[in-house]
Amino acid sequence: MLHKPDVTRSLARYIAATQWSDIPQEVRHQAKRSYINLFAVALAGCRTEPVEIALASLREFSGGRQATVIGRSERIDALSAAFLNAASANVHDFCDTHLRTVIHPTAPVAPALLALAELRKVSGPELLLAFILGNEVQARIGLAISPQHYDKGWHITSTCGVFGAAAASGKLLGLDERQLVSALGTASTQSSGLCECLGMPAKSVSVGNAARNGLWSALLAEKGFDGPAEPLAGRQGFYNALGDEPNLSRVTDGLGESFEIMATSYKPYPCGFVIHPVLDRVLDWRRDNPTAEVTRIVVRGNPLLAHRTDRPDISTGRESQVSLQHAVAASLVHGVAGLDQFTDACVGDPRVQALRRKVEVVRDASFSTIAAAVEITTSDGVTHRLSQMAARGSDVNPMSDRDLEQKLKTAAGSLDVTPLIDAVWKLEVSTDVSRLASLAVPKD
Amino acid sequence: MLHKPDVTRSLARYIAATQWSDIPQEVRHQAKRSYINLFAVALAGCRTEPVEIALASLREFSGGRQATVIGRSERIDALSAAFLNAASANVHDFCDTHLRTVIHPTAPVAPALLALAELRKVSGPELLLAFILGNEVQARIGLAISPQHYDKGWHITSTCGVFGAAAASGKLLGLDERQLVSALGTASTQSSGLCECLGMPAKSVSVGNAARNGLWSALLAEKGFDGPAEPLAGRQGFYNALGDEPNLSRVTDGLGESFEIMATSYKPYPCGFVIHPVLDRVLDWRRDNPTAEVTRIVVRGNPLLAHRTDRPDISTGRESQVSLQHAVAASLVHGVAGLDQFTDACVGDPRVQALRRKVEVVRDASFSTIAAAVEITTSDGVTHRLSQMAARGSDVNPMSDRDLEQKLKTAAGSLDVTPLIDAVWKLEVSTDVSRLASLAVPKD
Repeated sequence: MLHKPDVTRSLARYIAATQWSDIPQEVRHQAKRSYINLFAVALAGCRTEPVEIALASLREFSGGRQATVIGRSERIDALSAAFLNAASANVHDFCDTHLRTVIHPTAPVAPALLALAELRKVSGPELLLAFILGNEVQARIGLAISPQHYDKGWHITSTCGVFGAAAASGKLLGLDERQLVSALGTASTQSSGLCECLGMPAKSVSVGNAARNGLWSALLAEKGFDGPAEPLAGRQGFYNALGDEPNLSRVTDGLGESFEIMATSYKPYPCGFVIHPVLDRVLDWRRDNPTAEVTRIVVRGNPLLAHRTDRPDISTGRESQVSLQHAVAASLVHGVAGLDQFTDACVGDPRVQALRRKVEVVRDASFSTIAAAVEITTSDGVTHRLSQMAARGSDVNPMSDRDLEQKLKTAAGSLDVTPLIDAVWKLEVSTDVSRLASLAVPKD
Repeated sequence: MLHKPDVTRSLARYIAATQWSDIPQEVRHQAKRSYINLFAVALAGCRTEPVEIALASLREFSGGRQATVIGRSERIDALSAAFLNAASANVHDFCDTHLRTVIHPTAPVAPALLALAELRKVSGPELLLAFILGNEVQARIGLAISPQHYDKGWHITSTCGVFGAAAASGKLLGLDERQLVSALGTASTQSSGLCECLGMPAKSVSVGNAARNGLWSALLAEKGFDGPAEPLAGRQGFYNALGDEPNLSRVTDGLGESFEIMATSYKPYPCGFVIHPVLDRVLDWRRDNPTAEVTRIVVRGNPLLAHRTDRPDISTGRESQVSLQHAVAASLVHGVAGLDQFTDACVGDPRVQALRRKVEVVRDASFSTIAAAVEITTSDGVTHRLSQMAARGSDVNPMSDRDLEQKLKTAAGSLDVTPLIDAVWKLEVSTDVSRLASLAVPKD
C-alpha cells in the first residue's frame, strides 16, 4: 500500500485547530439530537444482562464514584462509566448509524465525553465540539476501508470508535497536535472487535472498550505517554493490519468542509433498519384500521430485506430483531414497535405466532434498502396497497426532534426526562455540563 | 477458509480436562523457570516511563489495594495489577520468547494469574498448571497463523496473549468447558496490538491489555457472560479477521502430547536475540583478556544478523538494543551486557563510541541465527578466533537455573530475592501462593 505518513498528523492538526465558531448551526443541532438519542438508547439498555454483569464485575475493581452510569443510581470510576454507558447505548442495536460505514457513531464517543465532563470542568459548546470532531474522525477512518473492513468480520463501531473516543476526549482535554497523534497511536493498538460476537453479550465488551480505551488513550497522552508517528498509515500500523487497500484520501480530503454527523440515521424501531420502511406503513395502517382482521401480508422490497430478515421461525427476542415476519406481526398485534415487541415473551405470544405465518416477502431490486411496498389483505377480502419510499429515520426522512424526544420519554419509563431534554437543547449556552448525565438517573 | 466449528471447543475441553498429574516433571520445572525470569524482567522494567505513567493514571480510577505491583510498594486493583506487571515484564524486550511464533509467552499470562491469586485462594500446582495451559493455548493459536500474522503488523504477544491470559485465568477459576468458550470469545473481541508501536510506550498498552483483558474475560465468563460458539474459526471470528489462511490443525493436533513451553528461550542479554551468540564469546574472551587493547572486530553470522543489527551510528539506548556494533563495544568496555549497557549514557560513552567503529559484520548463510564467529584483533597484532554454535538461552543451549537466578538477582539490585527464588522453586508444594508476588516488592 501507499505509505502516506501524514494521515494521522492531518487528523490531529484538524482536531487541534477546529473551534466552536467553525461549526455550522445545523451540525450543532444534529449533535444535540445525537445526545437525545443516546440517552434514549442507554436508558433502554442499562438493565440488560451484559450491562448488569459488566457493572457487577467492574465494581469489584473500581475506585470512587466519579461518574454516572446512565439510568442507574450506582456511580463508578470514569473509565468504567465510559465502558458501561457505551455498552448500554449499543446493546439493543437501537442506537444511531452512519450508514456508509455502518458505524454506530455516538455509542463510543459520547459516553467517553460524559465521563470526562464529570472529572474536569467542561462547557456545553466544548462537549459538542469534541463530540462532533470525534464523530468525524472515526467516520473518516472507517470510510477509507468500507465496506471491506466490516465484511472481513471487524465490528467497525468498535474498531473505529476507539479513535473517535480518543480524538473527542483529546479535544476536551485540550491536547496539542503532537499529543493527539500519541492518543490516536495508543488507540490504534487497542482497536479490536469482531462481528462474530454480534448478538452476544461479548459484543458489548468491544463497544464498551472503544469508549473506555479511547478516553484512556487521551488521558495517557496528556501525561506524556507516547506512540508512533503514523499509527494509521505506518508500515505496521492500523491500515496495514486491519484494512486491505485503504483509500486514504477519504480520511483527509475536505476536512472541515463537511460533517459526517449530518449523515447520521436514528432508529424509530429496535430492529434491523431494512425492516423500517415496512413498519412505517404497517403501523400507520393499523392506527387507521385498529380492528381489521388481517389474513395475508405480502412485503416487497430490496433483495437485502429477504436476505437478512426472511425469518418466519424464531424463538428468541434477539432473533426477532432480524425477522421481518415477526416485526410485522407484532406491530399489527400491538400497534407499536418498541422494545416490548422484540422480547422472548412477544415472540412466544400465540397471536403474534399466528400472524407471522401470514407474512410473505418478495425480492425486488427496483427498491432501495430504505423503501418497501406492503399489501395487507383483510378478512373482508379487501387488499390494502401501501408503499414507503424513504424510511423514517433515514437521512432523507429524518426523525423529527419531537420523535426523538418521544423515543427518549418512552425509554425512560417513569423517569421524568423533561429536565434532561431541556438541558440537551440548551447545551450551547451551558457553562458546566458535569451534571448532564445525572439527569438520566432515577431519583430512588 | 475452511470452517472448523470445533476449534475453540477443543481447546476449552483440553483446558477443562487437564490435571496437574498430566503435566510431566520437566514441564513443571520449565514453568518455574519462566516465573524466575518473569520476576527478573518485571523488576527490571517496573520503573520505566510507560509503567510510571500507566500506574499514575490507573490509580486515579482504581479501587482497593487488591494486588501487588512487582517491584513497587503501591498496591492496586487486580485488573490494573495484571496490566502493569505485564507491561513491566515486556517493556525492555528482555522477557522470554517462543521463537516459532515470536510470542513473549509469560508476560501476558503470569501477571493475570498472580493478580488472581491475590483475590482467590490458589495453590502452587494450580498456579503452575493454569500457567502451562495458558502458555499452550496462546502458542497454538499463534502457530496456526505464523509467520504471516506478525508480518502483517500484528504484535502477536498481545493478540494471542489475551487468549493465553483468558485460558489460564479460566483454569484457575475452575470454569467448565462452556464457560471457557465464553471466556475465549470475550478475549477474541479484545485481541489487538500493532507492531507499529514497538519501541514506543504505546507498545506496553497492548501487552498490558492482553493480561488485563484476558483475566477480565475469564471473570466475566464466571458470572455467566456469554460469547459466540466459535470465536476463533467462526465465519466472522478471530482467524477470518486477523489471520489469512490459518492452519487450524496446528491449534488442535496432539493437544496434551507435547508442551510448547518447552520451546521457551530466555534472554541473558537485553538486546536482539541474533546478537546473543556474538556476545557469548566476546564476554568470555574479555573475562580471559581483561586488559587487551582491541583494534578490530569482525563478526560473521547469518544474514539476518546484518539485516537487523548492522547499525554503527546510533544515539539512544533503545536503538542500542538492535545495534551489533554497540553491543560488542559495550561488552568489551564493561565486561558485561546488562541493562546498564543499553542506556543513552552508555551509547554516549566515548570509549564505547570509539570501539563501535572497529566492529565489522559479514553475512554468511551457512550460519544459523543462533550461531556466530568472531575475530578479535588486539594491539599486539594477534587475531583471536572464536565461535559459538548455539547461543546461550536458546532452547538447545538453555540458560541454567543458576543463570536465571543470577538474572533475577541482578535485576533486583538491593532487594534480597532469595526468599522469592526459594518460593518459586517450591511452588509445587505450596498450598497458598497469595504472597508470592509480594516477595518481589522492596520493604521500604
